[in-house]
Amino acid sequence: MSKEIPYKIYLEESEMPAQWYNVRAHMKNKPAPILNPATLQPITVEELTPIFCEELAKQELDDTTPYIDIPEEIREFYKMYRPSPLVRAYCLEKSLGTPAKIYYKFEGNNTSGSHKLNSAIAQAYYAMKQGLKGVTTETGAGQWGTALSMACSYFGLDCQVYMVKVSYEQKPFRREVMRTYGAKITPSPSMETEIGRKINAEFPGTSGSLGCAISEAVEAATAQEGYRYVLGSVLSQVLLHQTIIGLETQTALKKYDIVPDMIIGCAGGGSNLGGLISPFAGEKLRGEADYQIIAVEPASCPSLTRGRYAYDFCDTGKVCPLAKMYTLGSGFIPSANHAGGLRYHGMSSIVSQLYDDGLIDAVSVEQTAVFEAAQQFARIEGILPAPESSHAIRVAIDEAMKCKETGEEKTIVFGLTGTGYFDMVAYQKFNDGQMTDYVPTDAELEESLAKLPKVD
Amino acid sequence: MSKEIPYKIYLEESEMPAQWYNVRAHMKNKPAPILNPATLQPITVEELTPIFCEELAKQELDDTTPYIDIPEEIREFYKMYRPSPLVRAYCLEKSLGTPAKIYYKFEGNNTSGSHKLNSAIAQAYYAMKQGLKGVTTETGAGQWGTALSMACSYFGLDCQVYMVKVSYEQKPFRREVMRTYGAKITPSPSMETEIGRKINAEFPGTSGSLGCAISEAVEAATAQEGYRYVLGSVLSQVLLHQTIIGLETQTALKKYDIVPDMIIGCAGGGSNLGGLISPFAGEKLRGEADYQIIAVEPASCPSLTRGRYAYDFCDTGKVCPLAKMYTLGSGFIPSANHAGGLRYHGMSSIVSQLYDDGLIDAVSVEQTAVFEAAQQFARIEGILPAPESSHAIRVAIDEAMKCKETGEEKTIVFGLTGTGYFDMVAYQKFNDGQMTDYVPTDAELEESLAKLPKVD
Repeated sequence: MSKEIPYKIYLEESEMPAQWYNVRAHMKNKPAPILNPATLQPITVEELTPIFCEELAKQELDDTTPYIDIPEEIREFYKMYRPSPLVRAYCLEKSLGTPAKIYYKFEGNNTSGSHKLNSAIAQAYYAMKQGLKGVTTETGAGQWGTALSMACSYFGLDCQVYMVKVSYEQKPFRREVMRTYGAKITPSPSMETEIGRKINAEFPGTSGSLGCAISEAVEAATAQEGYRYVLGSVLSQVLLHQTIIGLETQTALKKYDIVPDMIIGCAGGGSNLGGLISPFAGEKLRGEADYQIIAVEPASCPSLTRGRYAYDFCDTGKVCPLAKMYTLGSGFIPSANHAGGLRYHGMSSIVSQLYDDGLIDAVSVEQTAVFEAAQQFARIEGILPAPESSHAIRVAIDEAMKCKETGEEKTIVFGLTGTGYFDMVAYQKFNDGQMTDYVPTDAELEESLAKLPKVD
Repeated sequence: MSKEIPYKIYLEESEMPAQWYNVRAHMKNKPAPILNPATLQPITVEELTPIFCEELAKQELDDTTPYIDIPEEIREFYKMYRPSPLVRAYCLEKSLGTPAKIYYKFEGNNTSGSHKLNSAIAQAYYAMKQGLKGVTTETGAGQWGTALSMACSYFGLDCQVYMVKVSYEQKPFRREVMRTYGAKITPSPSMETEIGRKINAEFPGTSGSLGCAISEAVEAATAQEGYRYVLGSVLSQVLLHQTIIGLETQTALKKYDIVPDMIIGCAGGGSNLGGLISPFAGEKLRGEADYQIIAVEPASCPSLTRGRYAYDFCDTGKVCPLAKMYTLGSGFIPSANHAGGLRYHGMSSIVSQLYDDGLIDAVSVEQTAVFEAAQQFARIEGILPAPESSHAIRVAIDEAMKCKETGEEKTIVFGLTGTGYFDMVAYQKFNDGQMTDYVPTDAELEESLAKLPKVD
């Protein structure tokens, strides 16, 4: 007889993963190597270490070790806000009248408001172990910057965040959370870096972009003794740390003999999706199980569904290594009406390769439909979701409604990456009926993709 | 041998309380009866029911039934966001270097951001069971309004919130959360009620007050067929529902054989404090155990430490019943520099009587010291606390530091009522070094107390 399943499945501390899972080790087709932008040759650990912490550079290039120990100090920090609950969405199921069983892994119960903290604490830890003074990074909406501020504060590291100027001005509360954690927040482009001054001179009054903020953060890291640059998504090291999500999910499901049919995650740079699905994709790769895995991306930034699988720059400033990934071109910027995150032009090289190999499906959804799902979910399940997470909610609801039609009792698991408490400007637009959709035209994408670097 | 205590103690669903605890049943000195403002005689259920839901009116006046069943539908809702964790503050202890053991009961892991949802869902439930169309209420900072919006949305009730105009304008994000849950938010004073029009005519351009918003909400409830008025604190029914906090805490402590020496809670109207401490005060009243219980209030609104124990109006508009309580006078308004909640002029009549009987101690703290504790806690424990909750943190840290001096290994439990994500304006003031303190003078308090109603 199967056990009664509670609303929230919490693991015991003793059941928490002691290792991250590196899905690359089990991939027949490994992600293509990342390239040194100067030489266009596969980059080495030595070439990465002036920018990245040493241990993180090693993790970035390690595609053979399947399990990597989580250091004790990181595990202690995880215990402050993890394990995160795997929630049975009983109320949503009832409200939809679906025979489907819906679960979500909720990563929003921490002050950064999202899963970003899982990797931030790891990156800060390795920086601290290396004896660094601090780290630099960029932030757009602010979830990553908040997470990194918290992590650096915990380990006594200096944290310098270049925040896209428009966000700095429009999201003063995110900025204040970071300041409360002692981080130094600089609106980007600033006058503090060479690239910032150059951009300010070239485009007076510019409100900034993520690409510019990355370039400033990288320059600031290399210009200061004892600093390195850190990044919150896209990189394989970040996906590695985020596998704590999928591993906990797997353990929680097994504890109650639940076998999912379908795993759904939102996808921007791929860190949440990759973290959630890696252990399940691993089972598929090893032939132990089969699941439908669905990546959900915004129709306004559709790297998987409409991008090209090619080498591209990871940043707009073209100072970072090149990665082979599904990309819309490093110059692509989602239309101005796009609310929330998931606005990166490319996709994690791991997720890209899994998608190219047919292990993952991808769909895109428009933002009005996403906010409809967000509102519906908030009212029924009592959690106001982040716009990003709501992409996964949209598809989970759609799939549950298909089950209602067919009568199938599918088990659906999706990732609820975070809360929307700092996204109320977007919610207000939705509440006021002012939210609009935009899907880039083929011509727009062609124009952006035409500028992809030529790599043999 | 005692069990190893995890960072977070979660109860199983089966361990969750099935009844609320009504501490009045075990009090030798019952709280004095609340009085009908028209007759100054003890009010009856019949006199209360035009304003309050019937079942809630009964709970309000019931001082003999010790345990009251929590209806099944409320328990189901509780399971969506409860049990809340009892957290062992290992990191804080280590950082302070104290031999004290510190625990906090964290009520912030829900979208209302505080414990308010515990009573909101109960009040909405009874309104729904009575076949009402909706409820009206007031909100200041917005936590209660948010909680009630969520609860009404869940049960399909209309929710009308009169929001103090200055908050409506300065806290647009709280407003949008409520709107996302389908609530109708009206800035108060409005032109929709008689009292609102009167106040607007008398004080053109006024930014409103909680007292005025209460009066508008009461008028709106009585003016509409099928509506009742609900309140988020002070009332004995609210304390009853909030005992879910203390009961869960008690069960979690017993599960690990932990006996607290000290229980600390912040106190505004008394709902959180009363809910947390009632079961422990009950043990004291029944002679089964002894604990030091400390109510922490702001020095700028010191009802327990500097108020008078007397009959007073519960609202500034003097339309609600009178209660005997520690009060600063119903016309008392904390100075303009006071950030956050805990700004009510009086104190729950239950908490007042327990305090008068010496079962509870009270201290007041100044807000700069409170925000220092908030920042320290955020950085060490990873949760950005609400300003209100930070009053309890302040005293918990102070007590832990006393233990460091004396070497005592006291066990300290405090209530962490919520998160500060919508309070970043106050944090910004603190981060900028602009936060100030204000303690009302004796003359100010005398002036306010001189206006207390004459009740024999």
